[in-house]
Amino acid sequence: SRELFVLTYGALVAQLCKDYEKDEDVNTCLDRMGYGIGVRLIDDFLARSAVKKCRSYSETADMIAQVAFKMYLGVTPSVSCSSAAGNEFSLILDKNPLVDFVEELPAERASLCYCNLLCGVIRGALEMVHLAAEVTFLQDRLKGDAVTEIGITFLRKAEDRKHKRN
Amino acid sequence: SRELFVLTYGALVAQLCKDYEKDEDVNTCLDRMGYGIGVRLIDDFLARSAVKKCRSYSETADMIAQVAFKMYLGVTPSVSCSSAAGNEFSLILDKNPLVDFVEELPAERASLCYCNLLCGVIRGALEMVHLAAEVTFLQDRLKGDAVTEIGITFLRKAEDRKHKRN
Repeated sequence: SRELFVLTYGALVAQLCKDYEKDEDVNTCLDRMGYGIGVRLIDDFLARSAVKKCRSYSETADMIAQVAFKMYLGVTPSVSCSSAAGNEFSLILDKNPLVDFVEELPAERASLCYCNLLCGVIRGALEMVHLAAEVTFLQDRLKGDAVTEIGITFLRKAEDRKHKRN
Repeated sequence: SRELFVLTYGALVAQLCKDYEKDEDVNTCLDRMGYGIGVRLIDDFLARSAVKKCRSYSETADMIAQVAFKMYLGVTPSVSCSSAAGNEFSLILDKNPLVDFVEELPAERASLCYCNLLCGVIRGALEMVHLAAEVTFLQDRLKGDAVTEIGITFLRKAEDRKHKRN
């Protein structure tokens, strides 16, 4: 059951809002915490999902949406590729269970990325399978957008760069 | 899936340990947060469990162990009544999923009740069904005890007291 998790997450965000005056600092802290969680969660994910190695960024993005989100949050975002280079993807959530108990952000917290932990989790987990990525919220229903959209940009690997240089 | 919850809970406790030097303050804060969660979680519990009104403290304790713990944490503690008056109960957990990723408490955090949120949740939820209770950890495997034991003492109702006085 997800409700205890969702309410506990709310308590965490509320505590950070007490601790930090600036929304940016709360966002950074949530991302950093998420990173630490992702780094540990990846083992559980690989063990339980028994997925094979992904061969492309596109396959990886689908895996995050269809297997990981389903497993940990019970929802399946849709995925779209948003760059010709094929390294930028959007996960689009019609429904975000993490905000089930949140009606709206208070006016003084307009820049809060309430679910920023998720970005950190994805970033941390990807790093453990040797994929560097930037993960950020591009749209958020809590901020009045029509959907919630998480952007994942896979960064060129260090090895690729070295190869090119040679 | 519970792992994301368990790791997020760990991040919450770690943050509170940063915020408060004294274990007692962390414990109090976790209990207070849990109370706020229990107050909200009870509606979800009643709606989804479709349980009937409990007729005794003993029935209530069984309900917490067999339905609520199962629903939200996936485990079923055993219950024992520990007072002749019939208002004190122990929930005994052989396995506590909330500490899955915790090896041991750091030496400087020896008085931390890592899972104290749960006590608050139970207390808050009970209060919403008009049952006042004290809920505390009596034993904790994280502290080297053989089992984890949560004590629930139902407090005499105000009405009962009034009735007696009359």
